[in-house]
Amino acid sequence: MSGSAPDPVTARLARARAAAREAGVDALVVTPGPDLQYLTGVVKHSHERLSALLLPAEGDVAFVVPTLERPGLAGSAVDGMDALTWTDGVDPHALVASRLGDVRRVAVVSDMPALHVLGLRDAMPGATLELATPILRQLRMRKDDAEVAALRQAGAAIDDVHAQVPDWLVAGRTEAEVGADITRAIVEAGHAEAAFVIVGSGPNGASPHHEVSDRVIQAGDVVVVDIGGPLPDGYNSDSTRTYVVGEPAGDVREVYDVLQRAQAAAVDAVRPGVTAASIDDTARAIIADAGYGEYFVHRTGHGIGLEVHEEPYIVGGNDLVLEPGMAFSIEPGIYFPGRWGARIEDIVVVTDTGCEAVNRRPHDLLSC
Amino acid sequence: MSGSAPDPVTARLARARAAAREAGVDALVVTPGPDLQYLTGVVKHSHERLSALLLPAEGDVAFVVPTLERPGLAGSAVDGMDALTWTDGVDPHALVASRLGDVRRVAVVSDMPALHVLGLRDAMPGATLELATPILRQLRMRKDDAEVAALRQAGAAIDDVHAQVPDWLVAGRTEAEVGADITRAIVEAGHAEAAFVIVGSGPNGASPHHEVSDRVIQAGDVVVVDIGGPLPDGYNSDSTRTYVVGEPAGDVREVYDVLQRAQAAAVDAVRPGVTAASIDDTARAIIADAGYGEYFVHRTGHGIGLEVHEEPYIVGGNDLVLEPGMAFSIEPGIYFPGRWGARIEDIVVVTDTGCEAVNRRPHDLLSC
Repeated sequence: MSGSAPDPVTARLARARAAAREAGVDALVVTPGPDLQYLTGVVKHSHERLSALLLPAEGDVAFVVPTLERPGLAGSAVDGMDALTWTDGVDPHALVASRLGDVRRVAVVSDMPALHVLGLRDAMPGATLELATPILRQLRMRKDDAEVAALRQAGAAIDDVHAQVPDWLVAGRTEAEVGADITRAIVEAGHAEAAFVIVGSGPNGASPHHEVSDRVIQAGDVVVVDIGGPLPDGYNSDSTRTYVVGEPAGDVREVYDVLQRAQAAAVDAVRPGVTAASIDDTARAIIADAGYGEYFVHRTGHGIGLEVHEEPYIVGGNDLVLEPGMAFSIEPGIYFPGRWGARIEDIVVVTDTGCEAVNRRPHDLLSC
Repeated sequence: MSGSAPDPVTARLARARAAAREAGVDALVVTPGPDLQYLTGVVKHSHERLSALLLPAEGDVAFVVPTLERPGLAGSAVDGMDALTWTDGVDPHALVASRLGDVRRVAVVSDMPALHVLGLRDAMPGATLELATPILRQLRMRKDDAEVAALRQAGAAIDDVHAQVPDWLVAGRTEAEVGADITRAIVEAGHAEAAFVIVGSGPNGASPHHEVSDRVIQAGDVVVVDIGGPLPDGYNSDSTRTYVVGEPAGDVREVYDVLQRAQAAAVDAVRPGVTAASIDDTARAIIADAGYGEYFVHRTGHGIGLEVHEEPYIVGGNDLVLEPGMAFSIEPGIYFPGRWGARIEDIVVVTDTGCEAVNRRPHDLLSC
C-alpha cells in the first residue's frame, strides 16, 4: 500500500546502519540478547554456538546461525535475510570474517560472550573491535510509543504487587516467606517471571542488593522491597518501596523524609535538555546536605526497557542530555550498615516538558 | 584438625592457579557465571557492574565487587579475599589493571561480556587476552565424586519426568499443553527450574532446537521430547526420548532402529583413552552406512555439569582423550525436514573401564 510506514524491524535496522555509518563503523555484529531482540524481535539464548546478525554499514545484512537452529527462525524478521549456516566443527568466526570482508572498525554488542569476542578478534586481525553500545543506545534509549506503553503496563503490574505487600509483611514471618508471596504475585500480575525479589528487613535493608533470607521480620523493622521482572513482551518493571512493620524507632522518620524529598526533587528535575548527571546531583545534594551523603552508595538510576539495567545511567559524570522517550529509574537510597536502609524507586519516562512516572504507589514510609 | 583435606574451594583455586602457571598465563579474570560458581560457589548474575575473581598465577587472589554488592558476599568463599570495591562512576577495569600490575597473558572466562573484555583490553594495553577455557576445562571436565553424585541425582529426576510423558502425549492436545505439564513436573521432580522443554511433534521434530508450538498432536505422530534443567545445586539434567502416538507410519521403525543402534554403539565406545571425535565417528558411521548421514545435522554430544553445554564436546575433529569423571551427552538424531525427526539422549560419565549412564529410561520408540 502506498504511504504505509516501514515495519519496525526494517526501520530499526535502517536507523542502526545509519548510526553506524555516522560513527564511522564498518559493521555491527549482534549476538542474541536484548540488542538482537530490539532490532529484529528474535529472542534466542546466547550459548556456545554462534548466532549473529551481521549489519554492515553498506551492503546486505546477513544472519549467521547453526544449521540445526535455522528452522527455528522460520517466520521471524531475519527469515528473509541471507542465512549463513554452519555445522558443528566449522569455525563460525571465520565465516563472519569472510562475509564482512575488508573491514576496519567492527562494533560488537556489550553482552557478546568473550568466546565470540576473542574468536572474532582472531579471525579478523585487520579489524579493531569496539562496543556497539554508543551506536545502539541512541536507538534503544529513545523509546517509541509502543515501548512507552509497554513500560506503563509493566509499571501498573508491579504497582499491583506492591499494593498487596502490606498484607504479607507481618512480624514473625521470614523474608523468604514474604518473597515467595511476592514472586507468585509478580507472575499473577502478568509478568513472564519474577526476575528479582529483594525483601531487606532491618539490617538487611542496608545491603542494596540483598535478596531474601531466613531472617524473621520484627516489629519496628524497616523493610526495603525492590521487585520486578519482564512482561511477556520483554519490557521490564522495577519498583522499590520502603515499608515499616508497626511503628518506626529513633530517627527513621526524619531520615526517610530526607530520602523522600530527594527522590521527589530528582523526579521534578527530569526534563529534556538537562544532563543525566544533573539528576544524580539533585538527589545527592539533598541527601548530603542533611548529612547522609556517605550512606547513599550507588547511582541515582538506570535506564530500563528490554533490560532491567540499560542506558541511560543516571550517575555523576554522565553528561548525556535527556530527550523525550528516555526511560529510567529514580531510586536514591540511604543505608546504615548493620542497622537499616531505605530506598524509593519509580520508573519515569521523559516527556516534552518533564516526565511521566509509570509507578503510582504512595511514596511515604508505608505502614504494615 | 591434622590431616584434614583442604576445602573444595581452596583446592580448586590452587589447581586453577597451577594450571595457569603451567600454561604460562599470568592471571585469570573470572566474572560471574559457571566458572565462578565452580571455583568459589559464588552465584551472581553477570550484569553491567563488574564483579570478578582475580586469580594471579603468583601472589594473592582478590575479588572485585561494586560497593553496594559487597555485603551480599558475607560468609561466602570470597569473603576472606582482598576485596577491591568500587562505586558507580569509577572505572573498574583500571582497578583490575592496577591490581594485576605488569602482566602479559591474561585469560578471561568464555562468558565474560564484551563490555568487560574490551574494557580490560583497553585498560591493559601491554597484555594479551585469551580464553580461560583451555585452563579451566581441565578442572571442570573431570567431575569429582560429589559432582558425579549430583549428575546422577539430576538424571534420576529427569527420568521421573520422562516416565510420565506418555500420560500427557495424547492426540488432540497441543505441544504447548504437553510442554506445560512437563514444565510443572520438572520442578516437582526437584529441579530449580525447567531450563528447556522441547516437544517436537511430526514435522517439528525435524527441527532439533524446536521448543513448543500450538501444533495439535496427531495420531501417528513421532514426537521428540528433550527436557532438563538445573537442580538447586546448579548441576543439570538433559535427556531426550522419542515417542510415537499410536502406530508409526512408513519407514519410521526402520529409521529409528538405525538411530537406536548408533546411540547404543556410541555409549558402548566410551572409555578412558579414546578421543571425543572417535565417539562421534562411531555414531555417525552407523547412521551414514544406513544412508541417513545427511540427516544427522549436529554433533553427537556435549559436556554437562554447571552448564547444560560445556566441555568436552563430542564432535568430529576433537582429539581430546577421554578420562574418568568426564560427563557428556550421547545424542545422535535423524531429521527429515518437513516430515519428522528422532533423537535419543543419555548423559554418561566416564568410569575406569567404560561409562555409566545416569539416564535409565528405555531407549525404544516409546508408545503413547
